Formats: sequence, C-alpha cells, structure tokens
Amino acid sequence: MGEHRVVVVGAGFGGLEFTRAMGGAPVAVTMIDRRNHHLFQPLLYQVATTSLATSEIAWPVRHLLRGRKDVTTLLGTVTGIDAAGRQVLLEGGGVVPYDTLVIATGARHAYFGHDEWEPFAPGLKTLEDATTIRRRILLAFEKAEREQDPERRQALLTLVVIGGGPTGVELAGTIAELARDTLRGEFRNIDTRETKVVLVEAGDRLLSAFDQKHSAYAKQALERLGVTVELGKPVSQVTADGVAFGGAFLPARTTIWAAGVAASPAAQWLGAAADRAGRVIVEPDLSVPGHSDIFVIGDTASVKRPDGRPVPGVAPAAKQQGRHVAAILRARLAGRAGPGPFAYRHDGDLATIGKRAAVIDFGWLKLTGWPAWWLWGVAHIYFLIGFRNRLAVSLSWLWIYVTGQRSARLITQGDGDSAT
Amino acid sequence: MGEHRVVVVGAGFGGLEFTRAMGGAPVAVTMIDRRNHHLFQPLLYQVATTSLATSEIAWPVRHLLRGRKDVTTLLGTVTGIDAAGRQVLLEGGGVVPYDTLVIATGARHAYFGHDEWEPFAPGLKTLEDATTIRRRILLAFEKAEREQDPERRQALLTLVVIGGGPTGVELAGTIAELARDTLRGEFRNIDTRETKVVLVEAGDRLLSAFDQKHSAYAKQALERLGVTVELGKPVSQVTADGVAFGGAFLPARTTIWAAGVAASPAAQWLGAAADRAGRVIVEPDLSVPGHSDIFVIGDTASVKRPDGRPVPGVAPAAKQQGRHVAAILRARLAGRAGPGPFAYRHDGDLATIGKRAAVIDFGWLKLTGWPAWWLWGVAHIYFLIGFRNRLAVSLSWLWIYVTGQRSARLITQGDGDSAT
Repeated sequence: MGEHRVVVVGAGFGGLEFTRAMGGAPVAVTMIDRRNHHLFQPLLYQVATTSLATSEIAWPVRHLLRGRKDVTTLLGTVTGIDAAGRQVLLEGGGVVPYDTLVIATGARHAYFGHDEWEPFAPGLKTLEDATTIRRRILLAFEKAEREQDPERRQALLTLVVIGGGPTGVELAGTIAELARDTLRGEFRNIDTRETKVVLVEAGDRLLSAFDQKHSAYAKQALERLGVTVELGKPVSQVTADGVAFGGAFLPARTTIWAAGVAASPAAQWLGAAADRAGRVIVEPDLSVPGHSDIFVIGDTASVKRPDGRPVPGVAPAAKQQGRHVAAILRARLAGRAGPGPFAYRHDGDLATIGKRAAVIDFGWLKLTGWPAWWLWGVAHIYFLIGFRNRLAVSLSWLWIYVTGQRSARLITQGDGDSAT
Repeated sequence: MGEHRVVVVGAGFGGLEFTRAMGGAPVAVTMIDRRNHHLFQPLLYQVATTSLATSEIAWPVRHLLRGRKDVTTLLGTVTGIDAAGRQVLLEGGGVVPYDTLVIATGARHAYFGHDEWEPFAPGLKTLEDATTIRRRILLAFEKAEREQDPERRQALLTLVVIGGGPTGVELAGTIAELARDTLRGEFRNIDTRETKVVLVEAGDRLLSAFDQKHSAYAKQALERLGVTVELGKPVSQVTADGVAFGGAFLPARTTIWAAGVAASPAAQWLGAAADRAGRVIVEPDLSVPGHSDIFVIGDTASVKRPDGRPVPGVAPAAKQQGRHVAAILRARLAGRAGPGPFAYRHDGDLATIGKRAAVIDFGWLKLTGWPAWWLWGVAHIYFLIGFRNRLAVSLSWLWIYVTGQRSARLITQGDGDSAT
C-alpha cells in the first residue's frame, strides 16, 4: 500500500506547525489553502495602518514548504468533506482523499447578527481586509483635504474602532500616530492633528483578558496619543455616516470592526456540533466526535482549558494544538501510546499602543512602556519566518521609529470604496 | 491680487519634475492626480514578476511634496478643462482655477482597435496592472499543479508576451527566470522548467529603437533563458485560450500586452489637435496652439526632435520637458526672455534581460552583459526617490541575485481572475 495520506486544510499557524512537526514521519502530506500565502496575522494591523507592506508579513506557502518533498501544496477552496468516503471536496470539482484529516481553517469576523454593518465596518482577518482598511483611512484624509463643509470635514476626520481587545487597541493607537506624526505637514487645508480617533468597547475595560492594571495602562497610553476611549458602550448601529453607541450618534466616515470573530464553516462541512461562534466542539484529543481520523485545531475549534475556560484564539494556542495532533498521529503510526489529552499552556499576553508603549504579561514577567515595546518587537521578529523578512520588518520598524515615516501608504485598487 | 496659480495634472515624472523646478518661484501650485502615489514605471515589470513589492516603487505624492509649502496636493480625477474660464473640472463637481495649467497625464495601453483583447491580455501601466499580471502568472502555476489533462496543463504552462520593446523584453526574461529558478522545486506535479515563455513581435527585430547589435544580443540572451522569440509575427487574435500569430494559434492561458500605448484623454479635454495615438500636438515651446497658458508634456504630448523624429515616451523626456516649461514660466513671471523652443536630448537606451544581462546604449558608451546590468541597477536606484527606498530596492535585488528568491509573490484580491 501507499504511505499514510494526511490532508491539512489551512496554512495558518496551526496547519503549518502541524506540518512542520510531521517532518520525517512516514506520511504523504497535502496542504490545501484558498490563498497562496501564509499570513502573519499579529502584524496585519500594521499593513492596515501603512506601517508595513503586504509582502513583509505574508509568504508563499509552497515556498515555506519547498524543502519537504513529502508535502504537496495545492491552492484550492474547500467546499465540503465526505467523511464516509474520506475525501475533501474542492471548488471546481476536485477531490483529495485522506487517511487522516486536519482542519485548521481559522476564523473570520462576525457582527453579532448585524451582517449589514460589514460594508461600513470592515474587519481585519486577511490581506485584502488590511489593504481595504488602509485605503479607507488614507482616502478619508484625501477627501477631507478637498472638503469645504466643516461638518462633513469633521466626519471625514473622525475614525472609529469598535472593540477593545488587542486588535482594537493596536489599531486605534497606530491610527492616532499615523494622523498625528506621519501625515502632519503633508496637508494644506486640514491639520491632521485634529483627527478624532474613537475606540468603543462594550465591556467595562480594554484588554479584558489581561490584568486589570494593564487595562488601565492601555487606556491611559491611548489617551496620551489623543484617542478617545469609550467603555461600557455597546454599539447599536453602524452606517456609512457614523456609529451609534451609548445613546448617541457619532458622525464618522471610517469605521473598523475589531469586536467579534466566528469560526470557518468547518462545523457545517462535518455536520459536527458547534458552539455559538461556530467552532467545532472537539474531544480532549482534538478529534471530531465519532471521527478519530479527523482533527480540528486553531481558531475554528472549541477547546477547553483544564479550568474550563475556553482556549483563546491566539497563535500560540494553534501552534500547540498543531504539535499535539502531530504527536498523536506519529504515535499511532508507530503503534505506541499517544500523548493523551491536549492541555493548553498559556504563555502570556502582549499588545502595543502606538510605537512607544506596550503591555506584556507573561505571569512571571509583567512589563509596560518602552521595554515592553522592544520585547514585543523582538518576539514578533523572532516568530516571523525567514531571515530576509526579519531584516525587512526590522528595517521598516527602525525607520518608523527614527523618522516617523511609514513606507506603505498606497491607495491601490482604484480610488473607489469597493471592498476588493 | 494673489499669487500666480499653477495647476499641474499628473504626478508622474513630467509633472513632478516641473513642480520641483518651480521651487522658489512666486507661484501657488496645485498638484492633482487620480492616484495618491507617484509610480516609478521603469520598475513596474518587477512588481508584475514578483521581484519587487508595490511599496518599493510607489510613494505618496503629498509625502514627496511635503516640504513645499507652496504646493497643495489633491487626490482627484479630472473630467475636463474649461479653457475659457481657466479652470480644471474634477469628478464629483469640484473646480480648480488656474493662471497656468500643465498637463502631464501620461499614457495608457492601446490595442490597435482591438479593445476586446484587453481582458485577456492586460497591459502594464499602473500598480493594479502589475498586481493583476502577477496574480495571473502565479495562478497559472497553481492551476497547472492541479491539472490532470496534459494539454490543458501545457496551456497553463505557456505564457505569451506581446511586444518586443524594452517592456516586453524585460517581462519575458524575468518570467522565464521566475519559472526556471525561483519556483523550481516548489511544485510536485509539474516541473516549472517546462514553462514555455513566448515573446511575439510584429517587427523584424526586438528593441527597434536600439542599435541592431543590441537587438541581436537581446534575442540571444532571451533564448539562453529559454524564451521563444517570434519576430515578424503580428498578432491577429487574442482570446482566453491563446494567441494567434504568424498563421498559427498557440494555446496559452496567460498573455501580457506590451505592444502599444495611447495618450490620456487630454486632447479631448482641450479640443486640441492630436496625433494617431491621441497625443496633443504642441507648439515648439510645449504649449497648446491658441492657449499660451496651457502646456502639455510627457507621454501625452506629441513633440518632435530637431531631426523630425518623435520624442520617445520615456522618463527622461518627460523630465526634460517639465524643466523646460518651468524655465518658460519663471522667465514670464520675471519679465525676461524665455529659453526658446524645447530641444530633446537623448541620453540613451537601457533594457535588462533577466538578472545577468542588459543592454545600455548611451552613444558614447555601449555595454552589454553583466557590467550593463550593474550600471542599469545603479542608475535606477539613483533615480528612485528617497534613501529608504533605495536601500529597500537594493536589498531586494541583492537577495534575488544571491538566492534567486523573489519576495513579493502574493496572490491578492482573491483567487478569481477579476481585473482589479
């Protein structure tokens, strides 16, 4: 017979780490993704705010896997899974048979039942999301420069970020710096320092997964950057003209959604039980109930920590799960006992606020301010893939740090507001 | 009264050089472009072939002009010119009044009366063109990897470039290198060295504006890279399935147009006489007949050399014209005699063939091969704008040179074949 065929759907952190950890095992791996690149999502907000270019945080999957002769990379969109027949179904009619299947298809943004808000408040999950947001932010300033009416101009110079988690905090801080520092002096009819950046959070503090002191620190750091932080204010309405929250309506022509995610359609493909966000409820060993040959990992899986809390949708969690499934499969193939149930180990939390402040909470190590920002930078550069990319991103950050100038300020895809 | 108001339409080489040369003159300048960035077009083919990222060859116009307090930059699309009322008409209803107007709106691709070919054979004039071509090239290999039928697979692995001028030669050579070197080893079902790159030229030699010996050199260098060069073969048909030339039909799923350009609509805006490619026929001082307050420069102007040959549509010509018009205007404002008619000074021609060969013909200096490539590289880096960009592009090229790896291999804007 042939080798054990493993199919991995999704080339994000979970899928890639699983594939890496299978190196040398007696398997033939097929990696399928609907995009040709692996995306370093933690830095996506920097593309959206012109600090980094798209090619600095995304790398072709087949290039990353080129040294693995046991791995075939396919560009394809999965439309379903035939679990009885053990094959993955692709758009256009292709099928990919498997002996073991690993689903790592991630998350997308969710609007709490208000999908009609999406055109007015794009989320930040893909490269196209990032360049769309970038285009809207830059266009707002361009339009304001030409706008004679003071009220319309003020609405153009008002940007709202919805959601006070790490993504929202990072976006709000960087947009404020972009307006205040990078763009200052480039306009003649407007003063970009009059830009109003508003971060709206429904809960009572920012960074709710962090320590209370860090939530307070982040709020102060944002306010020092000129950001208006609105806590305890759930959003009730989002339109092309602005956002309603806390009983008032704020005219704003640019709104960004960082408030909710939902899982990929994996649960539907499998007909499996899912939680409220659509994540597949998996067994303790990350397999699908009733299908010991199918594993689901990363943001699209619902996994619990030993204390019952959900495992967060962060990169380290996806990577740990990828390694765990690889260990299970290698044990099976070798006929030995496996590693047992998955136990998430939470390393810590990190978030930046602009380019001079950050919060890091590793439990044993808590840092804020300047030292935290440098450690954050070093850690992210370390986790980037490839020497050239580490060099490129380091240079980009060094340039921003020293000169305040951001080098990826392109409005592409025409000047319209089309989403792609 | 106020200062003399100058309006410049177009932030390409001509418009920017004119603006630069007006520094310190008693004028208020308004620069209008429908894009927010200045594009370094000579390197656009490198974005299309994944060697450079978009942000390495395009820079925000208002950033380039930030130090000029006399210059206001506006993002806007011109729809017409009211020459009697002396104002520029913008999409959306804005008007920009002028005392002197400089039109530098460049060229776009033209299909010799076959506009229906455009969806199947995109040209290369804007950043979106470059990323569209890049996406199609990369998708062709991705689809070939999944294609079972040998004939369809061969059509996917056949790429045609139409037009044997510098752009076509540069594209064909770099695509061949991309397939042969960069992508080799990354696919499991196809061997990218079997890619067929065909360069089709209607005339009897490549680089018809260059010396005969250079045309022959370029053909040999391309053939050494594995490119098939078809001379004396005008194209008669372009479809989604392939190209017809020289009495035969070649099945090819990726075709790129580098064979013809036409001017922007400036002549229509002005109701002025134009040549066959739509270029405005200007006076010897580059003004529009009957409108001494309107100048047209660059690719959108039809200008003759002293010997009667047309001035080529190259960056140095646009820059020389920009400087000439600035000299005329400064003389007028100071009440002295102007510099007289414009006289184009042809510095020379340059083209690269892959990363190890090039042709340079400066008249007094003719180079081919490796030394030409290095000089070409140094010259282009010199003409880039800004230290950071020179550093970034130098690093990108050094990386490609040493490792063969190209770092901008992203398929963005989804996986479809939509043009934007």
